[in-house]
Amino acid sequence: MVGENRIEPIQAFGLKVISVGFLNPGDKPIIWRGPMLHQIVRQFLGLVEWGRLDYLIVDLPPGTGDIALSLVQTVPLTGAIVVSTPSDVSLQDARKAIEMFRQMKVDVVGVVENMSYFVCPHCSHEVDIFSRGGAEKMAAQFSAPFLGSIELDPEVRKSGDGGKPVVLEGEHSAHAKSIFAFARNVVARVDEIKANAPASVISIQ
Amino acid sequence: MVGENRIEPIQAFGLKVISVGFLNPGDKPIIWRGPMLHQIVRQFLGLVEWGRLDYLIVDLPPGTGDIALSLVQTVPLTGAIVVSTPSDVSLQDARKAIEMFRQMKVDVVGVVENMSYFVCPHCSHEVDIFSRGGAEKMAAQFSAPFLGSIELDPEVRKSGDGGKPVVLEGEHSAHAKSIFAFARNVVARVDEIKANAPASVISIQ
Repeated sequence: MVGENRIEPIQAFGLKVISVGFLNPGDKPIIWRGPMLHQIVRQFLGLVEWGRLDYLIVDLPPGTGDIALSLVQTVPLTGAIVVSTPSDVSLQDARKAIEMFRQMKVDVVGVVENMSYFVCPHCSHEVDIFSRGGAEKMAAQFSAPFLGSIELDPEVRKSGDGGKPVVLEGEHSAHAKSIFAFARNVVARVDEIKANAPASVISIQ
Repeated sequence: MVGENRIEPIQAFGLKVISVGFLNPGDKPIIWRGPMLHQIVRQFLGLVEWGRLDYLIVDLPPGTGDIALSLVQTVPLTGAIVVSTPSDVSLQDARKAIEMFRQMKVDVVGVVENMSYFVCPHCSHEVDIFSRGGAEKMAAQFSAPFLGSIELDPEVRKSGDGGKPVVLEGEHSAHAKSIFAFARNVVARVDEIKANAPASVISIQ
């Protein structure tokens, strides 16, 4: 997978993906301190054969630590999407993430509520396992766009663990529709941000 | 809260707690690189007025990064508890955590499955939202003790967010019983580890 100083991403379903997990498969842990994480961020952005992409999405660990900092210092970002469950403890961290990105002059694309509600597959009752609606309220408090509520759906976990993401079922699938609605809101917001900002050319060595 | 170079922990329900969140309340983020995290780990262990404790529990972020390393290098640990949901992606990280602690010569107290299953409060059907039983299988593969399965219970989240942990209801509460069973297994395993190891005296400046 690793050529002469170039890294070929894994491809599936029209997506190219790279992950530290691919470099070191199996159960061996990679125990790295911050400066090494900074290097890997640079390599993943600069040495991977991405080709021409519509979007480059970086899935960050929770919190306001090293990797977010390294990323912001390495490339111009179009914006940040803040993900939270509706529970109070999750929202506390999400608020700090919004503040962090604003301090770093990164546009907040918006906030999405994950694990927003649960519909029992047996009796169809809705259960708000992690509470509900807190992320939308928080977004309003911060004047940040709210991008949608994604339900906690066992099919999403099953299809993901099984290697066939639920979105392959199409946007009319009951299990995928909240994800499609969220994605459409992201696309619209990104278009809006790009319309208001000068085009950026990314070059990393 | 912070005296002359000494930090007074917050106390509630017989527990003393310190958190970076207490040092910097509100929505202001603390954006710290690894070396500063190392300092705060040392300060939380060395400068906080813990007094005499039965147990000192350090809740680590997910993954195999900076803070776990700093902790291991700062104090002798009795052992590590590995928490995982039963979903495949969560188990992958948990396997690496077990390997990391073993590489660092830290005893693995055991593995606990969190969000193990869900009982619908309306129809009482069990739903395995994040799958079920994977952590127990993984523990067996690694010859690590399995410490229990904690159900995904909206009451746990509600009571936690409300500031009154569900365990205050006592060990016969339907919402707390899986947590008590887990805690009892931890106590037994810690006693076992301590019986086999020389007593350690901790002194951090």
